[in-house]
Amino acid sequence: MYLHPQLHSKKYLKHLLSIQGLPQDILMRILSLANYYIDNNLPTVEILKGKTVSNLFFENSTRTRSAFELAAQKLGANILSLNIATSSSSKGESLCDTVSTIISMQTDILVMRHFDSGAPFSLLQTVQKAHIINAGDGQHEHPTQALLDMCTIGRLKNNNFSNLKVAIVGDILHSRVARSDIFALSTLGCCDIRLIAPKSLLPYAIEELGVKVYADMKQGLKDVDVIIMLRLQNERMQSGFIPNLKEYFNLYGLDEDKLSYAKQDVIIMHPGPMNRGVEISDEAADSKFSVILNQVHNGIGVRMATMHTLIEDEINFNKNI
Amino acid sequence: MYLHPQLHSKKYLKHLLSIQGLPQDILMRILSLANYYIDNNLPTVEILKGKTVSNLFFENSTRTRSAFELAAQKLGANILSLNIATSSSSKGESLCDTVSTIISMQTDILVMRHFDSGAPFSLLQTVQKAHIINAGDGQHEHPTQALLDMCTIGRLKNNNFSNLKVAIVGDILHSRVARSDIFALSTLGCCDIRLIAPKSLLPYAIEELGVKVYADMKQGLKDVDVIIMLRLQNERMQSGFIPNLKEYFNLYGLDEDKLSYAKQDVIIMHPGPMNRGVEISDEAADSKFSVILNQVHNGIGVRMATMHTLIEDEINFNKNI
Amino acid sequence: MYLHPQLHSKKYLKHLLSIQGLPQDILMRILSLANYYIDNNLPTVEILKGKTVSNLFFENSTRTRSAFELAAQKLGANILSLNIATSSSSKGESLCDTVSTIISMQTDILVMRHFDSGAPFSLLQTVQKAHIINAGDGQHEHPTQALLDMCTIGRLKNNNFSNLKVAIVGDILHSRVARSDIFALSTLGCCDIRLIAPKSLLPYAIEELGVKVYADMKQGLKDVDVIIMLRLQNERMQSGFIPNLKEYFNLYGLDEDKLSYAKQDVIIMHPGPMNRGVEISDEAADSKFSVILNQVHNGIGVRMATMHTLIEDEINFNKNI
Repeated sequence: MYLHPQLHSKKYLKHLLSIQGLPQDILMRILSLANYYIDNNLPTVEILKGKTVSNLFFENSTRTRSAFELAAQKLGANILSLNIATSSSSKGESLCDTVSTIISMQTDILVMRHFDSGAPFSLLQTVQKAHIINAGDGQHEHPTQALLDMCTIGRLKNNNFSNLKVAIVGDILHSRVARSDIFALSTLGCCDIRLIAPKSLLPYAIEELGVKVYADMKQGLKDVDVIIMLRLQNERMQSGFIPNLKEYFNLYGLDEDKLSYAKQDVIIMHPGPMNRGVEISDEAADSKFSVILNQVHNGIGVRMATMHTLIEDEINFNKNI
Repeated sequence: MYLHPQLHSKKYLKHLLSIQGLPQDILMRILSLANYYIDNNLPTVEILKGKTVSNLFFENSTRTRSAFELAAQKLGANILSLNIATSSSSKGESLCDTVSTIISMQTDILVMRHFDSGAPFSLLQTVQKAHIINAGDGQHEHPTQALLDMCTIGRLKNNNFSNLKVAIVGDILHSRVARSDIFALSTLGCCDIRLIAPKSLLPYAIEELGVKVYADMKQGLKDVDVIIMLRLQNERMQSGFIPNLKEYFNLYGLDEDKLSYAKQDVIIMHPGPMNRGVEISDEAADSKFSVILNQVHNGIGVRMATMHTLIEDEINFNKNI
Repeated sequence: MYLHPQLHSKKYLKHLLSIQGLPQDILMRILSLANYYIDNNLPTVEILKGKTVSNLFFENSTRTRSAFELAAQKLGANILSLNIATSSSSKGESLCDTVSTIISMQTDILVMRHFDSGAPFSLLQTVQKAHIINAGDGQHEHPTQALLDMCTIGRLKNNNFSNLKVAIVGDILHSRVARSDIFALSTLGCCDIRLIAPKSLLPYAIEELGVKVYADMKQGLKDVDVIIMLRLQNERMQSGFIPNLKEYFNLYGLDEDKLSYAKQDVIIMHPGPMNRGVEISDEAADSKFSVILNQVHNGIGVRMATMHTLIEDEINFNKNI
């Protein structure tokens, strides 16, 4: 029987590499634990006392790295934080050697962001007993972002995923957030997932994931409960994917007019950092519908819950062997 | 009745944004608490246990950032340290969005340095319940530097501010330290504050702050108890404010000859980092009169006391409403 | 009687500056404590609770800095980590002023890496009561690397140093690791230390240290128990020390053929980061003989033991005065 490499068994999590291949049961267990932490004001506990969390970031990230650092501190862990992107210290060392070294320093949880899709999967032999959390790999997945997005939607929409209409808008093609969100929404039973984007920013054959594709914002946003805006990477703007920023904003930027097609109690989400005036207007970003800062806040709880689950499942799996 | 935005009320501190507008009572309370910490060898306590201090530095600073990090550790806080100056990770995000994000990660105290004068004041709506400490904003203020300067003077001069003659020497025009020191000395009753600088490095109408201006070092230093030397920023040297470094040192650099005009028990201060041979000679910097390293040491106690006061005043203000 | 500046007395350690001048008794005491920590799985203890360890790195280093940070965390210390190499914040300040400032922030242990040979020795007046650990100074010494190398050899070869044949291979000329290893091996009684390198990468009169020099790998590796490979710095390759990388690998790179001349139970060591294909082949690096990751792991225990020893010896020396 095929077992996804991030699992000890169908019931127990070993790594968090992708939402694709994450059983519904485990996903809901992480969200439930995250809600516990959030409801209790992100308390300081000692789940990771004496353990080491190493953050290995090959791409810059203030936001995600800070969230993991803070979550690890709140769980009482020792922390190594390595920003390889701005460091010349790797000195041409191979990824595998760098990771082996970090693991040999008695790392228990390795949080890794890498510009190559699939990078954390290539390290499964290397990490041995440590747990990997994928904090974003190329254009593949960003599972903790999807978890915090689901956590935020669940808290505000009563966990009633099967009745929700959710639109994901913008640069789907290059977005690991969009991919992870689609898998997470599907796992949780959402059956009206809409992608709104120009053709040039849509992956080939994306409909096979069970989503509906729209080129027009007003059609796509009609009666949706949730809008997930994506960041338009600056580098896309210069490489011919879109004609110009003004036209992009006119067609796909979220403003008050387009927003009016959604449900009255729609929520607006964005993984950040926002390009105001490019994919989202100030009015939309700062409106009462925006839950963008809730996402950030819930992100701490979700990272705490993810690390907690990895440590706990290790113990429970070993007990039940 | 006008209430300065850094105050809950005349008695209770909410943020530390500037020395201007800081009541004498609160200023002396912080200094008194700092002295307690310094007298007890900067002990590790648990005042901030479970709370988060986020350092957000838009300008490089080894010294100030380290002092805040260490003070926060000694108070038991969780710490985020973000150096935006060397990071490309802000990715064009607005200051307000960056700060909102940090605050949403459940930051209790935001320590911020920014190159724009007034930047922390512009964030008061954004930070909501968190406390801001201004760690230097453009050419405006650097309040914790002034507090540690006052702490150092007080400890060495028996807190007898009203009888002191204090000279501040150098690039007053661009110095947030000078501005904060002038306000702090005035608040503590010092009535002989002297600024010594070439005209090109003096702000317009500075006399209105109740200070005396000197262009000549020997006249200005006559019988002073305290000399506060200012750093001459390298960038000033290239932009026409001074003719050349050698002439600047001859006229305004502190050396043994000029020092001899001051009192026998004068103390020499400098916010660091020093340009030896530019604003100060080796002999002066390393003399028995120099208390520059005392300032650094006291700076830890002052930052501990400031954070302690913000947390305590929040509680006391809420009790007394 | 001459006393090495790193010692309180022949029995008590004050700083760790170099293996040269480190009494055998103290060296063995650190190794013994390191073994205790390693055997107990690098436990979190509170030896440095309330104390501050400051890492001051003037050269980039992910590996060594991380090891010290983690060791200090496991000992319960407060930590300042300053990467001067990538910071513009030194702003032309002198080394002595930077160190004085860090010390004045109540640093108890200063871990320093500097590109100048002898830099930490020049600071002995400056640090006063704090302890310095040399984390690498120019081409002089890297004592904690030698300690972790000795720890690793000792654990795998039953501490039987006097019967071992050890080869150190590669760029001896520029290697602080080689120098520290030679002194450590000598101190522990090893009497067959071999250096294998082209003449252009050997220091003048190195034989005076009691080592044998080989230009040929097969002769030098004959029957050795331990091979310590050195990193070939990229900058050497461009400055005429070696003709080209391919030829270097053919003559001095460790591959399976050359390896076959060593003992059956030889161990292969490397301080990292490795240049695979330059000084070592993939086959050798990943073979069962390789103990390179053991070195990394033991490095945490050795740094814990070093800091523990400095604090303990301070107390014991003061008791016994």
